[in-house]
Amino acid sequence: MEKFKVTFLPDNKTIEVEKDKAILSAAISAGVYINSVCGGDGVCGKCRVIIKKGKAFIPTDSILSAQDKENNVCLACLATVQGELEVEIPADSRLDFQKSQEQVFSETEEIEPLAALSEKDFRYLPLVRKLYVELPKPNLGDNISDLERLYRHLLANVNGVFFNANTDLGPYTGLVNIKQLGDLLRDSEWKVTVTLANRDGVTEVISIEAGDTSGRNYGISFDIGTTTISGQLVDLNSRKILGTKASYNKQAVFGSDIISRIIYAQEKDGLSHLHRIVVDTINEIIRELSAEHNIDLNDLSIILCAGNTTMIHLLLEIDPSHIRKEPYVPTVNFAPVIRAAEIGVHIKPRGLLYSLPGVSSYVGADTTAGVLSTGLYRQEELGILIDIGTNGEIALGNKDFLVSAAASAGPAFEGSGVACGMRAARGAIQRIRINPGDYRVDFETIGDAKPRGICGSGYIDALAQMLNCGIIDKSGKIKIEKNSRVRNSEFGKEFILVLKQDTQTAEDLVITEADIENIKRAKAAIYSATAVLIRRMGLSLGEIKKIFIAGGFGTYLDIESAIRIGLLPDIERQRFSFVGNSALSGAREALLSCEALYKAKEIARKMTYIELSTEGGYMDEYMAALFFPHTDLTLFPSVKI
Amino acid sequence: MEKFKVTFLPDNKTIEVEKDKAILSAAISAGVYINSVCGGDGVCGKCRVIIKKGKAFIPTDSILSAQDKENNVCLACLATVQGELEVEIPADSRLDFQKSQEQVFSETEEIEPLAALSEKDFRYLPLVRKLYVELPKPNLGDNISDLERLYRHLLANVNGVFFNANTDLGPYTGLVNIKQLGDLLRDSEWKVTVTLANRDGVTEVISIEAGDTSGRNYGISFDIGTTTISGQLVDLNSRKILGTKASYNKQAVFGSDIISRIIYAQEKDGLSHLHRIVVDTINEIIRELSAEHNIDLNDLSIILCAGNTTMIHLLLEIDPSHIRKEPYVPTVNFAPVIRAAEIGVHIKPRGLLYSLPGVSSYVGADTTAGVLSTGLYRQEELGILIDIGTNGEIALGNKDFLVSAAASAGPAFEGSGVACGMRAARGAIQRIRINPGDYRVDFETIGDAKPRGICGSGYIDALAQMLNCGIIDKSGKIKIEKNSRVRNSEFGKEFILVLKQDTQTAEDLVITEADIENIKRAKAAIYSATAVLIRRMGLSLGEIKKIFIAGGFGTYLDIESAIRIGLLPDIERQRFSFVGNSALSGAREALLSCEALYKAKEIARKMTYIELSTEGGYMDEYMAALFFPHTDLTLFPSVKI
Repeated sequence: MEKFKVTFLPDNKTIEVEKDKAILSAAISAGVYINSVCGGDGVCGKCRVIIKKGKAFIPTDSILSAQDKENNVCLACLATVQGELEVEIPADSRLDFQKSQEQVFSETEEIEPLAALSEKDFRYLPLVRKLYVELPKPNLGDNISDLERLYRHLLANVNGVFFNANTDLGPYTGLVNIKQLGDLLRDSEWKVTVTLANRDGVTEVISIEAGDTSGRNYGISFDIGTTTISGQLVDLNSRKILGTKASYNKQAVFGSDIISRIIYAQEKDGLSHLHRIVVDTINEIIRELSAEHNIDLNDLSIILCAGNTTMIHLLLEIDPSHIRKEPYVPTVNFAPVIRAAEIGVHIKPRGLLYSLPGVSSYVGADTTAGVLSTGLYRQEELGILIDIGTNGEIALGNKDFLVSAAASAGPAFEGSGVACGMRAARGAIQRIRINPGDYRVDFETIGDAKPRGICGSGYIDALAQMLNCGIIDKSGKIKIEKNSRVRNSEFGKEFILVLKQDTQTAEDLVITEADIENIKRAKAAIYSATAVLIRRMGLSLGEIKKIFIAGGFGTYLDIESAIRIGLLPDIERQRFSFVGNSALSGAREALLSCEALYKAKEIARKMTYIELSTEGGYMDEYMAALFFPHTDLTLFPSVKI
Repeated sequence: MEKFKVTFLPDNKTIEVEKDKAILSAAISAGVYINSVCGGDGVCGKCRVIIKKGKAFIPTDSILSAQDKENNVCLACLATVQGELEVEIPADSRLDFQKSQEQVFSETEEIEPLAALSEKDFRYLPLVRKLYVELPKPNLGDNISDLERLYRHLLANVNGVFFNANTDLGPYTGLVNIKQLGDLLRDSEWKVTVTLANRDGVTEVISIEAGDTSGRNYGISFDIGTTTISGQLVDLNSRKILGTKASYNKQAVFGSDIISRIIYAQEKDGLSHLHRIVVDTINEIIRELSAEHNIDLNDLSIILCAGNTTMIHLLLEIDPSHIRKEPYVPTVNFAPVIRAAEIGVHIKPRGLLYSLPGVSSYVGADTTAGVLSTGLYRQEELGILIDIGTNGEIALGNKDFLVSAAASAGPAFEGSGVACGMRAARGAIQRIRINPGDYRVDFETIGDAKPRGICGSGYIDALAQMLNCGIIDKSGKIKIEKNSRVRNSEFGKEFILVLKQDTQTAEDLVITEADIENIKRAKAAIYSATAVLIRRMGLSLGEIKKIFIAGGFGTYLDIESAIRIGLLPDIERQRFSFVGNSALSGAREALLSCEALYKAKEIARKMTYIELSTEGGYMDEYMAALFFPHTDLTLFPSVKI
């Protein structure tokens, strides 16, 4: 097979690929990330690149303008390599992962409105414990084996040392630990630290180390989302959250939704590629969190992951293809505990990686974790959890029952697939007020930094304000013409939120009609799924006493704005609670309490999944919700139009 | 460092080694096995080799005769390489592993006097089960994950499918099985065979295979002895023993007792070398047993090992050095279940390897297994188990208590370290009668083959007969002079048992005075340990109602002969039972019943070890036993002298 060199600019990265390979694939192989919301179907137009030199096959595609073609612009997903090439990736087409390396917030209090562990519900019983012991030395009258000596001492001196109630299941340990044990005990003068984990009810000795290292015992909880991967470092001794980091999921290059990822996973090496990307991202977050807090990877013994079902499959390199095919069956909902090293996650050599259990193909471990951390499962009153992510999930119930449903919302609320979107990180506009008179914009950014982009809560605020000021109409079109803040671009009208002189990027921060359309679809998906699920259960909104809103919008969500745009139903405001990333909170609770982990399993087993796409009314409900706030204004009595 | 080529004849194997390396070490590196009972201390004189060409440093050692030195004979353990060498290994110095490849017995009934599983004690609950299932296909109304579907079906349709009583501990399975599950279920039309193991009380799914393979479910029990390694293939479905194989433990090249092995393990690469040897031998036995019975290694899911504590350490590559040092502490007595592949044992890819628990440094899993299979632990009456191996072990007790002790007997009863010794295999003389008039010898061989050597029971018979005929005196010296069957050799007198024209080897089969001395020491060690242990417990022989004799002598043991030479005490014959390899029997019972495995753990925990070397009277007792049958003839009233 003929091969050609392709060089990507401005990165100046070169790779040799086979003839006929798509430029997008070549870029991926070269480690250059191009935006691609549709996953290579040639319909989203995000992956525009410029052929600077050389020969490429460019199919006649309607999505490109005549001017594009004149400028040698093509879609990277459709154009194929036919000779040596030089390809420029314009700033708009780049997936900018630079931002993703930044810490979301520096202050622990800001990150998590919930306590590290809600101890009224679960006792502090971390999945990993470190115990320092000083063993009596053996003598002729007491010469049991080294390993038994250690276990005997633990049993006699540490109350409830082994996790399993069934004492027949003694602790398990691997050969590696036993092989070094004889010398270790003698060299350390019988003073060692034992790291014990609860592995699905069986106690496992992860390591035995010389001396006292019991003060250094850490774990990281992860939420592996379609668009965002977040990790939270927890001190398993003090129960404190030490820090949180998030990164865009670089898999986004294969499409913004899980369906695109599943499709790519079926290509040659696709699954292992997606797997490696998520593992690399996890490793990056681990590295940064541990470096920042001066933690040796050897003191990090456990990773606990929430995430949607497809992401958990990709994390573990399990083929997700059956998730997508009727009758939508995942391979596994209760994934086994594995050694982190087994999938290339770098922590303590024999450290463990847990995945929380999922419910179905489209309601995953993230929802289980959310139900756990919000306490939905134990309430007397009816409640609902609306987790607004790329795949939105809704859980409804109380201590007697739990049902769930999913809605494909897209990544707009996570700041992806929108012109100036960004994750809720430093420099993101998260709060906006627009003066109805002169359209002057007041805003707040995360960390009070110069603005760099707009995060989910910023968009929600902006749209609510633009509606209130009459800048856009209820269909989302920009109505005003003659104003310095409104201009026409190639893709329709856009509203300038911040002028370039006031931004970090030295570019205007704008909201385009395409952005508004994206957000409208996202909010309609969430709203209609919520409404249909409530109706399907024979309930009415009035009966739902507590509404938990979860998601990675920012540090806060303006409920008023969310109702104004029709994302949330128009009911008494005090019924709403914004709970941030509830998946991460639930994962952290499980890290700190075996009881929480057991409860998560019970929740996942108990929760019923309801497939909305087969519900008669869902499509009608969705269409009706494609307005701000809704076609049926009687549903939004408090919204003044 | 200067290096030289050393060629070993008649193998014609050449290896390059560093100057000053011992010829014995060079031979080991070349894969040439030289006898070495003392483990390289230069005292046993077994490793004589002839320098044919080249330069070696030969220390002046008294053990060699003047004629030896003239003939360029030296001890391989002491002579070192000083230049390019050609070394011949005479037949006498070779460790002949050829014999070891033969099956001990072809008939199952002959091998094991005990049933495959004594079901009055243990229910048939094999450690590994294979279950064929036909799963209902998923549909929109029933779309739980593939793995849950499988588990749900097993739980609903197979009574007591999961081994653990605690249902919170669902079955565990590895990622490998889950990764292939989605396609496997669909390709096989939801008809699969699940292999389940009981791993320390946790159910583990070892494999999920297409179609129905449930009829093929095998395991092998092993007894890993210092001198002999035996394996027994068991059909886990029919509970039948399909075959038994044994092989000399090729570690014997590093000395015949465990102390020599432990010393070698401390040398550079010594531990890994010893480990590899035992694993290679196990793999050889597995290969031969499975080939002979047409069994695919993929249908062999479990290996269960008994063996003394040092051998279990070496099997698992755990440093045994602390076993030898006061206060004699092994690293582990309850070794964890591991994947066989972890130590290079080739069975089903995710197949498991279990080690039975040991009691102390010198009473190992073989004794635990013997106590299990003889039922000593559940008897009302007092009983004793005397396991005659290279390390002899004695267990005494009943349902109320169990004590144990060890005695270093040497490998003579296993046919090693004696001139014409061999394992109890085809062609071994196992029964001997000598006519007191003309010293004519009648004998029986295993398999009725032409004789090839003498096994343990043959030596016991031979010595008893030689005593009865007055050929040897009570100190073991050959008394008669002028007889065609007696001659002088370099190492003293020897008695010709079979003339070369009647042997397979075309060499005379003889018993030398050195052999007699060896056997005398071995029997004295066993007898005195038994006597001291009984006395230490404040008991007398009369109170011991049942005496189980175990060991690899042959298919039978002539109790009368064993008493005549003073190996066994002189009490009513009906109190003795010969139980063959009781370690192998116990291991097999554990393969076939979880209950037996649990019981083995209980036995090992319960049994007290008594160190005889610190007992005041042991050495006196041993010295007194260095006669046939004993110094104190009142102990042997039925023996007519």
